[in-house]
Amino acid sequence: MSTGTPAPRTRLSPEQRRSQLLDLGVRLLATRSVDELSIDLLAEEAGISRGLLYHYFGNKQAFHEAVVRRAADDLISQTAPPVEGDPVHRLLVSVTAYVDYVDANYEGYLSLVRGAASGNETMRAIYDDARRALTDRIFDEDPHGNLVPDTPAARLLLRGWASMVEEVVLRWKVTPDGITRDQLLELVAGSLPALAGLLPEEQ
Amino acid sequence: MSTGTPAPRTRLSPEQRRSQLLDLGVRLLATRSVDELSIDLLAEEAGISRGLLYHYFGNKQAFHEAVVRRAADDLISQTAPPVEGDPVHRLLVSVTAYVDYVDANYEGYLSLVRGAASGNETMRAIYDDARRALTDRIFDEDPHGNLVPDTPAARLLLRGWASMVEEVVLRWKVTPDGITRDQLLELVAGSLPALAGLLPEEQ
Repeated sequence: MSTGTPAPRTRLSPEQRRSQLLDLGVRLLATRSVDELSIDLLAEEAGISRGLLYHYFGNKQAFHEAVVRRAADDLISQTAPPVEGDPVHRLLVSVTAYVDYVDANYEGYLSLVRGAASGNETMRAIYDDARRALTDRIFDEDPHGNLVPDTPAARLLLRGWASMVEEVVLRWKVTPDGITRDQLLELVAGSLPALAGLLPEEQ
Repeated sequence: MSTGTPAPRTRLSPEQRRSQLLDLGVRLLATRSVDELSIDLLAEEAGISRGLLYHYFGNKQAFHEAVVRRAADDLISQTAPPVEGDPVHRLLVSVTAYVDYVDANYEGYLSLVRGAASGNETMRAIYDDARRALTDRIFDEDPHGNLVPDTPAARLLLRGWASMVEEVVLRWKVTPDGITRDQLLELVAGSLPALAGLLPEEQ
């Protein structure tokens, strides 16, 4: 059984082919943990040999890291806020995309969160970079501090907010407990302005 | 070099002696990770043989779990809010104790957080139990919902709040970035009422 459609190899550069394999890896990661994503599985799904995969990725660890890095890049691009609109609306759009991403990629995302917290330093670095990009973007997108002032306390609080959102969305996915998606979105998007209200304007 | 003072063994029951060794383990854990806490180190600090330690704890994994369980119990008891006072004040006292605990036990606490998120199911269960106890207590201590109503959304949000507090305090400990302890406490204690304000009173 193969869900991947092998592309005609002669038309693709090695870099394009590698990129295509990473996309397939990310799709497979949606419904399984990083540890469950084997070279064998990817080879079978891509319809190519294990040897060729090792040629592209070197070893299993490098393959896992490349797939997780691609997944993190996808998360960052898919949750980019719209260019126009008021800050609260743009935040809501971004948070909605985040909830949808976690919903659609739960197994892989959970393994990233857990892998990040465990002993693998490279996985932790990938995860930390992604988390930093997601929270720093809020300051980049809000240069006048309409949503939140750019202070050390605000940056610290926003890293905490990101942990809260992650925890809440991962728990809700497993145990929604009668809470609708709209209620979840309202809580998550509303929590940032509520927390920002705690911050002194200048420090 | 030994900082532990061996007690006269004949005066203690095995259960008391085991408990005393756990207390020593928790003290050693303050400045090192769980992985760095070896049977050898505990034996040296306690001034007893490795064999006797294996007699009390069975194996290294069981020893680590027993120490972490004791550390979690200590955290829960040390952060108990005072019996009297208004809810906001009681929360502030409890949060202050939490910050002081993380401050004094940073290495061991960090390894617990990381261990919890990694593959060890028992460590994760100990950590989850402690986290649940810390957040459920808020509802037990506030039966009339003065601080936060007892609804599924509130319980979900409070688990997220606990993640936020943990992240903020662990980051602040490494990089205070000019934020004073009082400012940190104000942010952390103030965040719960601010988030509770987002919750509908009934669902």
